[in-house]
Amino acid sequence: MRHFSIDTVSTWERFYRANFINCLSGFKSANLIGTVNKEGQPNLAVFSSVVHLGSDPALIGFINRPLAAAPHTIQNIEATGAYTINHIHPSFVAEAHQTSAKYPVEVNEFEAVGLKPLYIDNLIAPFVAESIIKYALQLVEIVPIKHNNTFLVIGAIKDILMEETLIGVDGFISLEKAESMVSLGLDAYFTTKLVARYGYAKPDSTIIKTD
Amino acid sequence: MRHFSIDTVSTWERFYRANFINCLSGFKSANLIGTVNKEGQPNLAVFSSVVHLGSDPALIGFINRPLAAAPHTIQNIEATGAYTINHIHPSFVAEAHQTSAKYPVEVNEFEAVGLKPLYIDNLIAPFVAESIIKYALQLVEIVPIKHNNTFLVIGAIKDILMEETLIGVDGFISLEKAESMVSLGLDAYFTTKLVARYGYAKPDSTIIKTD
Repeated sequence: MRHFSIDTVSTWERFYRANFINCLSGFKSANLIGTVNKEGQPNLAVFSSVVHLGSDPALIGFINRPLAAAPHTIQNIEATGAYTINHIHPSFVAEAHQTSAKYPVEVNEFEAVGLKPLYIDNLIAPFVAESIIKYALQLVEIVPIKHNNTFLVIGAIKDILMEETLIGVDGFISLEKAESMVSLGLDAYFTTKLVARYGYAKPDSTIIKTD
Repeated sequence: MRHFSIDTVSTWERFYRANFINCLSGFKSANLIGTVNKEGQPNLAVFSSVVHLGSDPALIGFINRPLAAAPHTIQNIEATGAYTINHIHPSFVAEAHQTSAKYPVEVNEFEAVGLKPLYIDNLIAPFVAESIIKYALQLVEIVPIKHNNTFLVIGAIKDILMEETLIGVDGFISLEKAESMVSLGLDAYFTTKLVARYGYAKPDSTIIKTD
């Protein structure tokens, strides 16, 4: 096993280092975030930084890169308070990845990459019609991370659109059956295969495999 | 496709709702975080909330639950500034999950679940010897999230231990080959299967599948 110090990694070529560091933190859920600006102009962008913050209240966070690199999604969320998070599946993963291109602000990524917006009553932000599991959020807070000019965007889940048949008897959602994808590094996308589900762990009990 | 409002979800039984909301945000990377308190007493706990914050500087975040629910890891990090993040693989996933049990503070989870601590020079926090990819961090900042009493713990990567053969020519790490796992909900663990890698997306180019 090799030991790399960060001083060594810092000397590596920029894209090599970015791939390496992005992979090191592991697989992430692959999502498309849908927003509109105040004029109703849609924006769609792929994000790999969605993180669960809590289930009661149901809060979800995501990391937005610095404003200079990725201004549209966060500015739209600040302006309207509304956004959608849409799982990515193999049937449209190429289109999803293409939303990472730096389109000018006036370009509607739904049209540019070929995905269908879906609107529901009382929500101005568009869902991705093709996504099998998706939810809408109301902005709660944008927390600036001063060390690298990124932002933790915190939202409360308001509406969920999905097939009810994906929900198990205990509330568990079969994302494997839905083929919700994970991403790795800057450009790789994976499906998953269940290895095990376990019981609620207690100090004095043996580990129980439930599935 | 069914539309659930959060008002409906809020009426669901607590564990059913927790499973549902935890699954909704998607797959997460499955990691063990190793720490010690000021007396050198080790702690090891499974976390599914590691998030990439940036590659230069190389910053990683994770969400720590409220202090009343999960005090040991965050208190050790506050006390010592040092921690390790260790990928989880199928060969010890049951042991990794078992660290989620609420052991008393004096219990060393390495011993309780049967994993080996690994120490390197100039670092007081233990790695998990069995983990194929692992890295040590220095605390940068703990950001309180006031809406649900959780914390975003931000650290800078300092040392990386892994097999060099897992690193590709472009810096990409084959976590699929390493069988680094993803988790879902509260208790499910998965391996992954590559679907595609794409080129760097540009507005005027067709999506290119590189792998």
